[in-house]
Amino acid sequence: MVKVKVYITLKSGVLDPQGKAIEHALGAMEIHNVSGMRVGKYMEFYMEEKNPDQGQIEMMCEKLLSNPVIEDYSYETEEVVPS
Amino acid sequence: MVKVKVYITLKSGVLDPQGKAIEHALGAMEIHNVSGMRVGKYMEFYMEEKNPDQGQIEMMCEKLLSNPVIEDYSYETEEVVPS
Repeated sequence: MVKVKVYITLKSGVLDPQGKAIEHALGAMEIHNVSGMRVGKYMEFYMEEKNPDQGQIEMMCEKLLSNPVIEDYSYETEEVVPS
Repeated sequence: MVKVKVYITLKSGVLDPQGKAIEHALGAMEIHNVSGMRVGKYMEFYMEEKNPDQGQIEMMCEKLLSNPVIEDYSYETEEVVPS
């Protein structure tokens, strides 16, 4: 069994209003040493195989988990012992 | 300058309807070897200091970036050369 961690980030040219809102809120909290806030998604799931098909993970990321027009994805896998 | 990566996940007992919806969609795509889908948030930002105050990062995570009642957070920092 394998745990898969997927990180979805906005492509660098894409505006991130949620990140801007967080920066604005930080300013209201008198925190001024933070910049470049970007908000993305993190997903984790389990796959039954010990050596899962990387192509399947990439297909899932491209077709379902991310929007490839505006988002990039990366992932890592980690073997786990089923409990 | 330091890049901070924050991972926000739902606590284990908290229902994740978004994760369930993704699992349902995977079933419709004839993918049946995936389970335990959980959706969280990923944030990255920069701090001016070379050795930022860990307490400040934790305060930001607890007060602004996560909801500590239902979410856990973790973070990692990575030194970067300002471009």
